[in-house]
Amino acid sequence: MSQKRYLLTPGPTPVPPEVLAAMAEPVIHHRSPDFKDVFNGAVERLQQVFRTRNDVLVFTSSGTGAFESSVVNLLSPGEPVVVVSHGEFGTRWQKLAAAFGCEVVALDYAWGAQPRAEDVARVLSESGARVALLVHSETSTGVVSDIRSLVEACNDAGVISVVDAISSLGAVPLETDDWGVDVVVTGSQKALMTPPGLAFASISERAWARSQEATLPRFYWDWANARKNQAKGSTPFTPATSLVVALNAALELILAEGLESAHARHVALGRACRAGAKAMGLELYSPDNDGAAVLTGILTPEGIDAVALRLALRDRYGITIAGGHGDIAGRLFRIGHIGYVDIFDITTALGAVELQLVEMGTTVQRGAGGAAALAAYAAAV
Amino acid sequence: MSQKRYLLTPGPTPVPPEVLAAMAEPVIHHRSPDFKDVFNGAVERLQQVFRTRNDVLVFTSSGTGAFESSVVNLLSPGEPVVVVSHGEFGTRWQKLAAAFGCEVVALDYAWGAQPRAEDVARVLSESGARVALLVHSETSTGVVSDIRSLVEACNDAGVISVVDAISSLGAVPLETDDWGVDVVVTGSQKALMTPPGLAFASISERAWARSQEATLPRFYWDWANARKNQAKGSTPFTPATSLVVALNAALELILAEGLESAHARHVALGRACRAGAKAMGLELYSPDNDGAAVLTGILTPEGIDAVALRLALRDRYGITIAGGHGDIAGRLFRIGHIGYVDIFDITTALGAVELQLVEMGTTVQRGAGGAAALAAYAAAV
Repeated sequence: MSQKRYLLTPGPTPVPPEVLAAMAEPVIHHRSPDFKDVFNGAVERLQQVFRTRNDVLVFTSSGTGAFESSVVNLLSPGEPVVVVSHGEFGTRWQKLAAAFGCEVVALDYAWGAQPRAEDVARVLSESGARVALLVHSETSTGVVSDIRSLVEACNDAGVISVVDAISSLGAVPLETDDWGVDVVVTGSQKALMTPPGLAFASISERAWARSQEATLPRFYWDWANARKNQAKGSTPFTPATSLVVALNAALELILAEGLESAHARHVALGRACRAGAKAMGLELYSPDNDGAAVLTGILTPEGIDAVALRLALRDRYGITIAGGHGDIAGRLFRIGHIGYVDIFDITTALGAVELQLVEMGTTVQRGAGGAAALAAYAAAV
Repeated sequence: MSQKRYLLTPGPTPVPPEVLAAMAEPVIHHRSPDFKDVFNGAVERLQQVFRTRNDVLVFTSSGTGAFESSVVNLLSPGEPVVVVSHGEFGTRWQKLAAAFGCEVVALDYAWGAQPRAEDVARVLSESGARVALLVHSETSTGVVSDIRSLVEACNDAGVISVVDAISSLGAVPLETDDWGVDVVVTGSQKALMTPPGLAFASISERAWARSQEATLPRFYWDWANARKNQAKGSTPFTPATSLVVALNAALELILAEGLESAHARHVALGRACRAGAKAMGLELYSPDNDGAAVLTGILTPEGIDAVALRLALRDRYGITIAGGHGDIAGRLFRIGHIGYVDIFDITTALGAVELQLVEMGTTVQRGAGGAAALAAYAAAV
C-alpha cells in the first residue's frame, strides 16, 4: 500500500477535499465577472473571520509579503518602530524593519515568554514610535500572546498596532474592531485551510491615514492601489486566481462551522495534545494552558534526538510534524493543530510518536497518550 | 446544459487537466523532502525553458513582483535606469522604477511600435545608466520585440538588461545564455500553462555582482536570501506549494513537447488567427508577422463596440478574450494563443466572433474565418 500522509505542522496545514477540488477548477480570468463574484465573496468572508469592517487587502504572496506591506505603507526611512519579539517571527519582523532603514526599537523577550503590556507601554513612551509590530501567535514556540492588552497599550499611546496573526487568525479569538487593532496580517495556509500563496492585511482608518504620510517606497505592496482595484472586484496585478477560488470555498466551510466553534475546537485539540504528551511522560515546551491552541511544542526524552524522531515519523509513518530552531532544535518537536484538524489527527500523531520513541529505546506506557488525548477531548467538547 | 467555458486571454491561460489535477493533490510541507524533490525538479526544468545555466529564483507573487525584485536588487535610489516602453507594461515598469526613487530615463515609442536597438544604444550612452528594463512581448499590443538586438545594445554598452518575458517565455524563442540576457522575468500563468501565483527571475553572474552594490531596500524580494534557500531546495518564506507542484507537472509537459515544437505551434496558431481574422474582413491591430505569436489584436468593424462584443462572447458563448486599453479600448479585442492552446481554440474563438458580429449587424462571410485559420494552420505544421 502506498503510504498515507499526514500533515500536522503549524502551516502549511491540511486542506479539506472540497477546497482541493476547488483548486482544480479550470482557471478563470481575474478581470472577469466570474472571478469578481468569487473575489468579492472571499473578501467579505475574510472580513467576517477578521471580525472587522475595515478593508481586507489580498496579496499574492506568503504572509511575510503582507507583513512587509505593512512596514512599507506605514513607515518612513529612519523612523523608529517598536518591534516586540518573543521568538523567531518577532525577530524576523525586526530584520524586516531594519532592512527598510527603520530605527528598530526592539522589545526582546526570551523565546517562550509572554510579552507584557506594561513593557510595551514603557518602550512606546521612551521611543516616541508611532507604529508597533506585534506577534499574536509565535509559531516557533506555541506562545499566543495576550494581544488584546498589547494593542490596548498601543491605543493608549496613540500608536498604530500591526499584528502578525498568521498562525492565529481563525484558530484563536482576535477581535479586530472590538479590540481596535489597526492592521492584522494573516496567510491562507494556516487556520484558513487553504494552500499557501495568498496573504491578507486588514487596515483601519487610522492606518490608512498614516499610510498617506509614510514615505517608504512601494509598488507591488502599495495599499492604495490595492484598495482601488479591490473596489472593482480585482487586484492591481494578476492574483493567484485558483487560490482565491479555494480560499472562498474554505471560508464558507469555516463560517459554516462558526468562528466560535472553530475556536472551541482548537482549544479542545490543544488540551488533548498536551494531555496526551504528558501522559506519555513527555515535557511540554509550549505553555500548558488553553491559550496555546495553535500548536503543541514537546521535548523529547533526554538522549533522544528530535530531528531523528521527526525523520522516522516521516519516513516510517508518513507523518510530517515541525521541528525546533536554535538551541532547542535537538530536543523540540511541534505538532500543529490549526485548521482542518480533528482529534484523530492528534491521536495519530501521538500514536506514531509512541511507536517511534519505543523503537528508539524509550519506555512509554502503551496507549497512554492516545487515551489521555481522547479523554481530554471528550471533556472539552 | 451548463455553458462550456473557453479562456483565450493572453494570461491567465488555460491549464491542462494533468496540471489542474496536480494542483488538487494534498498539500505538502515546504521544508519536506517531498517538496524538495518537486521544487528542485521545477527549478531545473525552468532553467531548460529559460535556456540558461543561471540561477532561476522562484517567488510567490505575480510577474510584477518578480520584476520589482529586479529593480530593488539591481538599483540604488536616484540612480538612472533606462526603461523602454512601447505599451502598457513598459509604462508600468517606468512607474515601478520611479516609485523606488530611480531616475527613469524613458525611451518611449507609440503603442504598437517596435523598439530599435540604435535608439537603446543612444539612450544608454547619453544617460550613463547601468541597467535597462526591456519588454519582450508587450501583451497590450501583441508586439514581440527583437529582444536579441536590444540586449546586444545593452551588452555593447556594458549595461545590465532586465527583460520582461512574462507573456513570451515558452511561446517564442528567448536564448537567455546565448544572447547574454542578464535577468529574465516571467510568470506561471502564461506559456508555462500553470495558474497564476508564481513568478521567476533568472540572474546572470554580472547581475549577481551588481546586486551586491545596489542599495534599494529589500526583504521579501531579496535575491541573495532566495538563492541561499533555493540551494537547500526551498524558499525563504512559505511558497505556494500547490502551484509549485502544478508548475512542475506543466514543465514536464512543455519539455515533452519540446521547446522548438512549442515555438512552432505558437507561430502556427498566430498565423491561423491572423488569417482567420483577415478572411472575416477584420483589421489586425497587432503586427501581421510571425513574430506576433503570443496574441492577435483585432479591431472591430466601424460602429461595433469591442466591449459589447466581448461581453456577448462571454455571456452567450462562454468565451473569455481580452480587451484593449486607452484610446483603442472601444475597437480592440485580443485573442491570446499562448500555452495550452490548439487550432480548435482559434476556430472556436473566430466562430464565436463571427456569430456575434453577424448578430450585431455586420456582414461576415459565413465560415470564412475558420476555413482560413484551418488552411493557414495546415500549411504551417
